[in-house]
Amino acid sequence: MSITETPVRLPIPPLPRGFRVAGAHAGLKRNPTREDISLVLSDHPATAAGVYTTNLVFAAPVAYDRARTPGTGFRAIAVNSGNANACTGTRGLEDAAAMAAAAAAALEIPSESVLVLSTGIIGEFLPLEKIEAGIAMVASQLASDADAVVASARGMMTTDTRPKLAGSSFQAGGRSHSLFGMAKGAAMVGPRMATMLGVILTDAALGVADAQRLLAEATEATFNCVSVDGHTSTNDTVLLLANGAAGGAPLAGRDLDAFGRALADACEALAREIADDGEGATHVLRVEVRGCRTRDEARQIARTVADSPLVKTAIHGADPNWGRIVSAAGYSGVPFDPDGLVLRLNGTLLFENGQPVSFDADLVSASIKAARETLIELEVHAGPAAIRFYSSDLTAEYVHLNADYHT
Amino acid sequence: MSITETPVRLPIPPLPRGFRVAGAHAGLKRNPTREDISLVLSDHPATAAGVYTTNLVFAAPVAYDRARTPGTGFRAIAVNSGNANACTGTRGLEDAAAMAAAAAAALEIPSESVLVLSTGIIGEFLPLEKIEAGIAMVASQLASDADAVVASARGMMTTDTRPKLAGSSFQAGGRSHSLFGMAKGAAMVGPRMATMLGVILTDAALGVADAQRLLAEATEATFNCVSVDGHTSTNDTVLLLANGAAGGAPLAGRDLDAFGRALADACEALAREIADDGEGATHVLRVEVRGCRTRDEARQIARTVADSPLVKTAIHGADPNWGRIVSAAGYSGVPFDPDGLVLRLNGTLLFENGQPVSFDADLVSASIKAARETLIELEVHAGPAAIRFYSSDLTAEYVHLNADYHT
Repeated sequence: MSITETPVRLPIPPLPRGFRVAGAHAGLKRNPTREDISLVLSDHPATAAGVYTTNLVFAAPVAYDRARTPGTGFRAIAVNSGNANACTGTRGLEDAAAMAAAAAAALEIPSESVLVLSTGIIGEFLPLEKIEAGIAMVASQLASDADAVVASARGMMTTDTRPKLAGSSFQAGGRSHSLFGMAKGAAMVGPRMATMLGVILTDAALGVADAQRLLAEATEATFNCVSVDGHTSTNDTVLLLANGAAGGAPLAGRDLDAFGRALADACEALAREIADDGEGATHVLRVEVRGCRTRDEARQIARTVADSPLVKTAIHGADPNWGRIVSAAGYSGVPFDPDGLVLRLNGTLLFENGQPVSFDADLVSASIKAARETLIELEVHAGPAAIRFYSSDLTAEYVHLNADYHT
Repeated sequence: MSITETPVRLPIPPLPRGFRVAGAHAGLKRNPTREDISLVLSDHPATAAGVYTTNLVFAAPVAYDRARTPGTGFRAIAVNSGNANACTGTRGLEDAAAMAAAAAAALEIPSESVLVLSTGIIGEFLPLEKIEAGIAMVASQLASDADAVVASARGMMTTDTRPKLAGSSFQAGGRSHSLFGMAKGAAMVGPRMATMLGVILTDAALGVADAQRLLAEATEATFNCVSVDGHTSTNDTVLLLANGAAGGAPLAGRDLDAFGRALADACEALAREIADDGEGATHVLRVEVRGCRTRDEARQIARTVADSPLVKTAIHGADPNWGRIVSAAGYSGVPFDPDGLVLRLNGTLLFENGQPVSFDADLVSASIKAARETLIELEVHAGPAAIRFYSSDLTAEYVHLNADYHT
């Protein structure tokens, strides 16, 4: 497997107050230029929330974090890539605890204030010596500058070609707050998940219940609306740390709403980045489904269209193949009247009243070729619910990457 | 798009008594060596049963046949490829009726004794002049020899590389009966369907209700357990004609059971052929799931494994990547205890008790490379239900075929 890296997208968002990060190579990945251990440290005890994979086969770090969040008093997240610590049984759980203990020792904080994230190969035991040495090393490199941010985001990458970062600032309670997010994921990205891995940091003060509720809501509308290959991972986790370093009481009312919007925007940006960096992708598919009875039904239609190999290859071929899109909606399992279905591709009307309309196929094809993002809009006329879903196209490069990536 | 044809698999099964068939090129496909019109004629009025796509967006011939089956008095099936007559509105329904009427005129039989099948491009109106001329031509070529059988099966092909044929004989009521089947399908083959197109002929006498019930049962366990790309077509149809030419009363009791077994075997053989001829396929995946609470749950697990692009590319790469298979089972939506899951690949135990077992990966990889079929066995330990599901691997050739096949 050979992944060609692409430059990180600028600008690098700043860390919220009271957070430091680091990332380094500890020998889990073969290539010594690839970071594989990261640490996130909050100088203040933080409220933590988490959302996790719905896969019945879930990894040890998922079990570890899920048992501890949501809650308060958290100080750090220890991350490794190159090994997922999944399907590793009882020893995997012990290794996840050992990884947390190693971070606690290096940072001189309580073990129970550390959460862990792992991603990479499934079914191999964590190389604990390398991880312990790596954690000790990155603990001495913690910083809050852009280089540290990029290194820490690279430390959670597997086949990603670039770090995925998002950030924003918002006003609440008369104070300025900021929010930062980083994520990874390029394959085994399926729609019934949290995401691959995501970490959201904020200097806002948040109540535990609010943190968990807002993270779950944001995930539902963003990370749970992205797919590369429809394969839900064993390790999907998004963690939120809110350390209150901006000062003030836990946010409430309109201030909490302001935070919720900033959080949703960051999650949306990271989710889109994951689809954009989908293995072998040449296009991002943005599928917008409107006029459904419920958001779940809208998502089900969008997911079926976004996951269809025939739709994904058509977009790769710059082919305005409305028949594949309409027939995918038709087998989604959501009941609707096909005669009321309206399809637009990159803004051009292709289908309504149960039939295709006359359109300039060359022009639509050229519009697909010209842009990284292809917009597929479906209107169902059954109700008020809508969804936006991101996916990537299916290319020969995806096949090569996954046929050659051996266990 | 360029499809390389492969030779028809020998032997060619004989037609049951009282049936004649033909196929020819009528100008719907560009390549003049490709048949695109077929006729099936029963010399006696036959009992007809049909199963159809569950896609809400279904083609005009599906609407036409579904309104008329099951029933008695059927004499012919008119088939065209190159045009699906799907998403064609009211005019599509009129064209399907015109196609039946053209066959009736050419064969001098009642219009209401004709069923129609179409497959090919979605969203274009049938070229009725070519179809009427083609039907008149093939009506003069009807025969029961092997050449006629191959030509008629080729007349329903689209991107198939070879005709898919099955046949057998069975004893019932002290008489010898025979059964013949032909099918097409290489993409837009999804698991919640009948199949692409299938025609089953028998000289047995069958009651209408028995014919429909047995066809539905056989389809459920065979055509509904095959997938190339998970994309359910608009045109899926399997038709059964039973003309009673073997003599005797409609089959009942043990005789009906004998017919049911022959029917299920033929459907199974054709379903496997469809997976085997999946676009770009280098391997057939046979996924056997056992120990489930219900057959639907077994199928859901099998389908999720068989449709995962990560599993399909792993098999293409001859990679015994048990992590992808186990995690696909885990996100299937079927509840089970992961610690009870057992996975075998080509007979070698790879995973049990929530962990991988030690195995010779090179040997298993070599076994995948050595055979066209790869056997994935999953045991869930939750109940008595089992299923067998066929799929194909995912290759760069599939992507090329579907990115370049323009509307």
